[in-house]
Amino acid sequence: MSRDNKVFPSLADAIRSSGLKDGMTLSFHHHLREGDRVQNLVLAECAAMGLRQLTVNTAALMACHRPLLDHIGAGVVSGIECNYMHPAIGHAISRGALAGEVIFRSHGGRPAALASGETRIHVAFIAASACDRAGNCNGRGGPSAFGSIGYAMPDAQFADYVVVVTDRLEDYPLVPASIDEREVDAVVLIDSIGDPGRIQSGTTRVTRDPVGLLIAGYAARALEASGLVREGCSFQTGAGGASLAVARFLGDIMRRQGITGAFASGGITGMLVELFEEGLFRTLMDVQCFDREAVRSMVENQGHREISAATYASPQARSAVVDHLDMVILGATEMDLDFNVNVHTDSNGLIMGGSGGHSDTAAGAALSVIAAPLIRARLPLIVDRVGTVTTPGRHVDLLVTQYGLACHPRREDLKIRLLEAGLPVWTLEDLKKKAESLAGIPVRRKAQGRPVARVIDREGQLLDLIRAVD
Amino acid sequence: MSRDNKVFPSLADAIRSSGLKDGMTLSFHHHLREGDRVQNLVLAECAAMGLRQLTVNTAALMACHRPLLDHIGAGVVSGIECNYMHPAIGHAISRGALAGEVIFRSHGGRPAALASGETRIHVAFIAASACDRAGNCNGRGGPSAFGSIGYAMPDAQFADYVVVVTDRLEDYPLVPASIDEREVDAVVLIDSIGDPGRIQSGTTRVTRDPVGLLIAGYAARALEASGLVREGCSFQTGAGGASLAVARFLGDIMRRQGITGAFASGGITGMLVELFEEGLFRTLMDVQCFDREAVRSMVENQGHREISAATYASPQARSAVVDHLDMVILGATEMDLDFNVNVHTDSNGLIMGGSGGHSDTAAGAALSVIAAPLIRARLPLIVDRVGTVTTPGRHVDLLVTQYGLACHPRREDLKIRLLEAGLPVWTLEDLKKKAESLAGIPVRRKAQGRPVARVIDREGQLLDLIRAVD
Repeated sequence: MSRDNKVFPSLADAIRSSGLKDGMTLSFHHHLREGDRVQNLVLAECAAMGLRQLTVNTAALMACHRPLLDHIGAGVVSGIECNYMHPAIGHAISRGALAGEVIFRSHGGRPAALASGETRIHVAFIAASACDRAGNCNGRGGPSAFGSIGYAMPDAQFADYVVVVTDRLEDYPLVPASIDEREVDAVVLIDSIGDPGRIQSGTTRVTRDPVGLLIAGYAARALEASGLVREGCSFQTGAGGASLAVARFLGDIMRRQGITGAFASGGITGMLVELFEEGLFRTLMDVQCFDREAVRSMVENQGHREISAATYASPQARSAVVDHLDMVILGATEMDLDFNVNVHTDSNGLIMGGSGGHSDTAAGAALSVIAAPLIRARLPLIVDRVGTVTTPGRHVDLLVTQYGLACHPRREDLKIRLLEAGLPVWTLEDLKKKAESLAGIPVRRKAQGRPVARVIDREGQLLDLIRAVD
Repeated sequence: MSRDNKVFPSLADAIRSSGLKDGMTLSFHHHLREGDRVQNLVLAECAAMGLRQLTVNTAALMACHRPLLDHIGAGVVSGIECNYMHPAIGHAISRGALAGEVIFRSHGGRPAALASGETRIHVAFIAASACDRAGNCNGRGGPSAFGSIGYAMPDAQFADYVVVVTDRLEDYPLVPASIDEREVDAVVLIDSIGDPGRIQSGTTRVTRDPVGLLIAGYAARALEASGLVREGCSFQTGAGGASLAVARFLGDIMRRQGITGAFASGGITGMLVELFEEGLFRTLMDVQCFDREAVRSMVENQGHREISAATYASPQARSAVVDHLDMVILGATEMDLDFNVNVHTDSNGLIMGGSGGHSDTAAGAALSVIAAPLIRARLPLIVDRVGTVTTPGRHVDLLVTQYGLACHPRREDLKIRLLEAGLPVWTLEDLKKKAESLAGIPVRRKAQGRPVARVIDREGQLLDLIRAVD
């Protein structure tokens, strides 16, 4: 290998060259979501090479990453650090699959921990859909294009050794270089980095569920009533069906009022691309493409900007996109009377998610809205104490459910605006009682076992422990 | 100031907020070349605030930066670190204006020293022609557009505190963000950052001088004979008239042979833009725009890529553009029989330049060509020992003069190809004698005074000392 040509003949050769040893930390990214093949390939290669006690550090573990559990069982992997964990892996962790404790961070806390040196990555494996022989790479070109490669950018910057794994080797120099050759040590060409058809999940379409639409309608009206839907405003929402409905309704308001927003941010969906291409938002700040439309738009539109996870949300950065955010729509599996939100564990205490950008955007946005059904599978949303604190209540401004809205007590100003707009505003206690009158007070299992995960807040402090479920 | 809005009411306020103190290091960039106003403004402000013993760190000091000499005289500035110094400042330094020693690096060595921590910048002042309230900025927008902001990118990454000085405040978020808000602490809006009409100097037009054209013609034929002018080739040349002529002749060869090059790099001129837009080069790797055509092209063409100084040339990076370079055309004020090249000092020993990217490209390129007149102002180019070693002879492959060519002894392969192509190849000794037979052996003054500058090579090692001239 030379400075001009870093292409290794095989993954095994690149791993050997990286100096990866027992006990070290590898990192991955999840931009290919359920279609990713690179993490499984690399871990299988590590297993074949007899490596042990590795730590896997990644923004998100998806269901397709289940082979990780076998590697844990075999002693190849003994540590996990991530911001999100699919239940397919989370349930096993909650039942004690890992001897140690998972470290949960947030999408902004992860690059902050890398920048501060709190977390170290020995070898980063970065799936890229196009790469040149020197390591200039992106997620835009090639047959496996997935769009933004934002979550891997901090890994490229801070890892001791960086391996780009690609299925499309382009002539030097690849332009644009979302990740630059100056940060890349090795390039490996494989048959397929994954299936981009599986980036989009079923959740990226606008809901048709009447409850979801009711919640979305209330949420949109609340945004309008807040006064924040104005020229130059900014907005973020998730990829869930109700979130997309809020985006559509917000678009209607902006169109009616002739408003152009500054940006929409976060994981970008075709819905946000529609609003952007219509001119309702001047820019998109894209740390992750959730569907093909987002990938297409990022390639075509200069105003659709690819951003790193650090630019998106790092509290260690001099500023980040979330610091400029007016409105964010977030979900919740549980909320308690202090407005603390849980998206880590389910009602049985089993790990089924993680913060992702939840706590980052809630901390940054001027108006953080939790939009969720008051009752789900006969379980009330509002509980005495959330099983796990993902986002502290002090960063939440408003809860929107199909039965009404509740403002955080420090947002009396918001409450007045919502009432003036004729929205059904209650206290959180009222909504809790309403839910319990409909669904009863369920008996919740409290996880009592040893700690299986630590939830670290975006600033790097311990926020909560997740315990094993028997 | 907040994380959302970093705009300070004045330069003085931003300087106070930066914590700049006596003895600290400030940095600047020179993309506005002879039109830059920001460095003088900032230093005047520092002087007015009573700061003393500051070190100025910048890629290049131009003639317009002469007020620096007054600040040295007044004790405001006591240190200089740069890669190039215009004679308007250099002569004064050679006559002892600075009590200490200037540190000369190269365009690649400077970001390498920042990355390794060998050099520290306390406060970077970055002139940007467009910036938003959070510090996302570039040199593309606004009335003072200067194009690539590549030399300032490492400063933004590594300085303790980063102040962007702009004359065009844009709505958040500015896209593209050549420098990202996550690296910026403060933004200051001033009336004018400079005069972009003075970016282009008289040297960016193809020479009409018959000697220059003769040299350029030989150089182009040498490139062709070397076998490197082939599909996917890469090329760099300077902005001087003879260099531009080489580019034109190279374009003729490529057009005739139906060759498409991979990239042209470095400081980009309208001449290279012409070749690129004609399709003779697939990309431009641009660390600095030398004229308006380059600025226009960078804004319009995605294939015209803005690169940082680190990506351009840092030996500390995992690779840099210079590592992929096939052919580079460079100048010389002196060359000695070991092929060492001097572009730091003139025949009287007075500082009149510096490496810039000279030593970086010579080290990286497969074929490093020095193109220079054998006699200039009645002084022979070739001397027994260069006054200052800028680029070690081991990185030079070929000298081209109007009287003939000379290959470095280790390039016997090249010599054979040139001879086969019918080019007049001599030894360096022959060419030296030829020059001396025409111009005589001049009496050269050897600078004997105290050291006034240290030339540090791109790897960070001391390469030479420059002594005071009485």
